[in-house]
Amino acid sequence: MERIRVIAFDADDTLWVNEPIFRGVKAEFMTLLEKYADAKTIQERLLAVERENIGVFGYGVKGFLLSLIETAAQVSQERLSGADIQKLIALGKEMLASPVELMDGVEAVLEDLCRRYSLMIITKGDLLDQESKIARSKLAPYFDKIEILSEKDETAYDRVLSTHGVGPREFMMVGNSLRSDVLPVVNLGGHAVHVPFATTWAHEQVAVSAMDQSLWLTLSHLGELPPCLPQRFSLAGKS
Amino acid sequence: MERIRVIAFDADDTLWVNEPIFRGVKAEFMTLLEKYADAKTIQERLLAVERENIGVFGYGVKGFLLSLIETAAQVSQERLSGADIQKLIALGKEMLASPVELMDGVEAVLEDLCRRYSLMIITKGDLLDQESKIARSKLAPYFDKIEILSEKDETAYDRVLSTHGVGPREFMMVGNSLRSDVLPVVNLGGHAVHVPFATTWAHEQVAVSAMDQSLWLTLSHLGELPPCLPQRFSLAGKS
Repeated sequence: MERIRVIAFDADDTLWVNEPIFRGVKAEFMTLLEKYADAKTIQERLLAVERENIGVFGYGVKGFLLSLIETAAQVSQERLSGADIQKLIALGKEMLASPVELMDGVEAVLEDLCRRYSLMIITKGDLLDQESKIARSKLAPYFDKIEILSEKDETAYDRVLSTHGVGPREFMMVGNSLRSDVLPVVNLGGHAVHVPFATTWAHEQVAVSAMDQSLWLTLSHLGELPPCLPQRFSLAGKS
Repeated sequence: MERIRVIAFDADDTLWVNEPIFRGVKAEFMTLLEKYADAKTIQERLLAVERENIGVFGYGVKGFLLSLIETAAQVSQERLSGADIQKLIALGKEMLASPVELMDGVEAVLEDLCRRYSLMIITKGDLLDQESKIARSKLAPYFDKIEILSEKDETAYDRVLSTHGVGPREFMMVGNSLRSDVLPVVNLGGHAVHVPFATTWAHEQVAVSAMDQSLWLTLSHLGELPPCLPQRFSLAGKS
């Protein structure tokens, strides 16, 4: 019945590159700590600390930085120096100020779609950090609404759709995370497009069956979205 | 012409106690570091680090905790231990889980006003932290809208009012900070009520003249708000 009216985009690793910045900092972190412990120990500790802290600190650079510091304090067995701490904090501040590198072809896709649909950003993380990246990306003019959430689950999407008076069948979410961009939206009866990024943070990884995968569209590149929209979605919407 | 239709409340130190939690943690921080430097040096360094970091990390517990750790690394002159870092991180986590202590009489005031006005919360800080405090406060049912912002300046209020279709003359902001709750709202042509809290964070302090003070109402307690609303504001609104 209903046609898609609103298309929302995830931001990190969908509109711009993010995970490689975290990976780069993790590599520097490993080098900084190699005098205290072996790589496997540090990696396992960091993943455990991050998993434990996500519910307390939420997503974003500040919580990540606190997890790095906590891991460093744990694996260094009391030998961690103030200088190492200052280096870690400096790494975090660099992350917050690093240039925003847009994914290939993003602007052309948004330029095209914003004439036919109402566009949104729905992202999670630290408020100031995400606002600052949106400003640095210079993409804000393409979007009618920007929502920065602490979590992207069914409850959160349901609230956002209600706030903006959008029905699930009129809504499409586009992003790189099955866990945050695809599954909750499909479960609400909305449309979802998965554009996997080269690397996915362990926390966002989920296992899905071949059957589930028929519920959403998977594209290898954001540029494939505009040409396939009329065929797959407007026609389906009219039936 | 217009009557007040929407009353928005700041959260920290307006609806519930917040600054004393920060002060308590600062006191524990001073004790932890007294082996490295004198109190005056630590205090001055912390204020300088906080001021420098506010633009990078924003408001909230995570940024505060990172500033504590950075200050500790600076004043300890390379002698900071991993155990001290872990104690600081534990203090931060305790802050994030500490019970929400409502200000005296808050529920009675909200109970009364929510029948006559549309109520909002407009607060700044970390998204997850503020959401969690709102949930723990159990006050959410009194409010039609909740806005968590990275900064509460004229631009931010202007955007919130536009989003919700509220004119400045129909809007009243109630809070403990002249800088964040009163001055930007008065400058936009809205109404503001200042309910000073016992202590104000140095960052929020501003100097105001006696003349300025005639532009808003100052109350010593939130409970004084409902009885003075009809006299001062509805009548003024009708003229």
